Amino acid sequence: MTELKNDRFLRALMREPVDVTPVWMMRQAGRYLPEYRASRERAGNFMGLCGNPEAACEVTLQPLERYPLDAAILFSDILTIPDAMGLGLYFETGEGPKFKKTVRTEADVNSLKVIDPKSDLPYVIDAVSLIRRELNGRVPLIGFSGSPWTLATYMIEGGSSRDFRRAKQMLYNSPEVMHRLLDTLAQSVTVYLNAQIEAGAQAVQIFDTWGGALSHQAYDEFSLKYMRQIVSGLIREREGRKVPVILFTKGGGQWLEAMAATGADALGLDWTTDIGAARKRVGDSVALQGNMDPTILYASPERIREEVGRILSSYGSGSGHIFNLGHGITPEVDPEHAGAFIRAVHDLSTAYHT
Amino acid sequence: MTELKNDRFLRALMREPVDVTPVWMMRQAGRYLPEYRASRERAGNFMGLCGNPEAACEVTLQPLERYPLDAAILFSDILTIPDAMGLGLYFETGEGPKFKKTVRTEADVNSLKVIDPKSDLPYVIDAVSLIRRELNGRVPLIGFSGSPWTLATYMIEGGSSRDFRRAKQMLYNSPEVMHRLLDTLAQSVTVYLNAQIEAGAQAVQIFDTWGGALSHQAYDEFSLKYMRQIVSGLIREREGRKVPVILFTKGGGQWLEAMAATGADALGLDWTTDIGAARKRVGDSVALQGNMDPTILYASPERIREEVGRILSSYGSGSGHIFNLGHGITPEVDPEHAGAFIRAVHDLSTAYHT
Repeated sequence: MTELKNDRFLRALMREPVDVTPVWMMRQAGRYLPEYRASRERAGNFMGLCGNPEAACEVTLQPLERYPLDAAILFSDILTIPDAMGLGLYFETGEGPKFKKTVRTEADVNSLKVIDPKSDLPYVIDAVSLIRRELNGRVPLIGFSGSPWTLATYMIEGGSSRDFRRAKQMLYNSPEVMHRLLDTLAQSVTVYLNAQIEAGAQAVQIFDTWGGALSHQAYDEFSLKYMRQIVSGLIREREGRKVPVILFTKGGGQWLEAMAATGADALGLDWTTDIGAARKRVGDSVALQGNMDPTILYASPERIREEVGRILSSYGSGSGHIFNLGHGITPEVDPEHAGAFIRAVHDLSTAYHT
Repeated sequence: MTELKNDRFLRALMREPVDVTPVWMMRQAGRYLPEYRASRERAGNFMGLCGNPEAACEVTLQPLERYPLDAAILFSDILTIPDAMGLGLYFETGEGPKFKKTVRTEADVNSLKVIDPKSDLPYVIDAVSLIRRELNGRVPLIGFSGSPWTLATYMIEGGSSRDFRRAKQMLYNSPEVMHRLLDTLAQSVTVYLNAQIEAGAQAVQIFDTWGGALSHQAYDEFSLKYMRQIVSGLIREREGRKVPVILFTKGGGQWLEAMAATGADALGLDWTTDIGAARKRVGDSVALQGNMDPTILYASPERIREEVGRILSSYGSGSGHIFNLGHGITPEVDPEHAGAFIRAVHDLSTAYHT
């Protein structure tokens, strides 16, 4: 493999010294970029992009052409695993992801099999290999998956949900069925992320988008437990280098200590958590990724720079911080503002590294 | 005024001894009750209920006929203040509240005046008087208002929002305009709650439904600051008794210490916060209200009872806990399950009070 020219991201994840704070953006290959919208137009739809390794590679690299980002993230969807399980993922305009089949009964759960990434999701694994080759050592490539609980909510509800009524009914009324579903998903996520790592992913992130909808106790039992299972089953070293794992529970700011105890190398923070306070709570056990409110990108470049400065100052000196937004960048953001954000992180963070 | 026959709720808010843990439910007068749906049908629509003191009184009392609740809450909407400011509140089926006019520019903000509750919202004040009379001392009556930040989001966005794009643009790009708007709202909320107290409300709750969408720093500056202003301007004693104030920021579990420092008597918790951990954090400074996940009401009565027991045990012995859901009860809940919930609180909590 080609030598990595910029390894700030991987170094910060391992809390090793860096020259400036590395930065990337969740959903950085996305609709706010005109070149992405053009690619999507050509592909016909979102799945046309995800399902085609060349197209996925193209859009993965687009933000790197525009901005001095310190990492690339595989362009894909968190719901590829349930799709591979036969649920039939599709997207309706303005409505988010949906499934043709749902998983609501014990029989539904029992019929699901742990996926085989190479035969069930070859397009993702091929995309990882291709992107890694095309990156040619510029920056590291991040692989990812949805968390078991997050995948389960979509599979049970059949799409997005406001209150996760059906998923929580299963959780509270048939916890043993829910546990079986989550175990099948945890096994699938483990082999899926390992296949991404074997194909070239240099770090992986688990997106627990809906963990924050649970009570603390239910989070421990139904979400965190399965992320711990995944972390302990992952390939942790590859090409002579650690493969760091990032855990991101949106709305999980109250549970950082428990998340840090899973063995993950870094925690993603949404913007509701003060990153300085979070650092005090987790100490030296993990790196922290985040956490600017993505809506600040609607503000002026001066205001964006000020907020970047505030977050850098809150984290303080030393390595262990990967700058990011607290959630994905939104379609309405002006690409110039995203650029101002990324420049501000590099400019202003030199003061915090010696 | 008639003597209060059941003052558990007020006693628990002041952390005075009680026989059992008091319980009420946010949105307890609501669509899950067939008698409420019938009243709403007769009134024509939601505003027909809110705007008519007799109808508002009728639906306020409905849940008390069914269940041994320890408090009544005024039936009204959090958006009456912006409606009184001339924004034109209306409801579209399945879409939530909307405003005919929005507040987006400095000129829009400057044109707003602090409301006069008696002339601008007589129907609310009359409803409070009437409900208090009809309650005849059965249980205390809770008055309420939306928080300034929460009201501002609806006024700026013109309705509900996913990411509060416009409200946050004002907050980040024109903080001084946002502060002027919030100050006008804080003054209005203060006189509004005081008018409710003078009309007979025996406790008040400030609903900060969208405070949790802010970063910690923005929460302090744009939401908490104005709730502190309100708390310090409220009538705190009436009829020889303290009028307690409850602060409820949904998603505010990370900020309880700051909320407790406002001078409020109690904090509302959503279900993501462990109530035992919250009690340790705030100590004896405030009472705690909450915090069962409302979706547990979809589970079996046995499972509901188990969860009530878990929360009671997490809070532990002694007064200072008002049992509630972590958010409003939802329309699909079986009224029998709500009954099982309320009974379980009274049954199981005797062990925690001597």
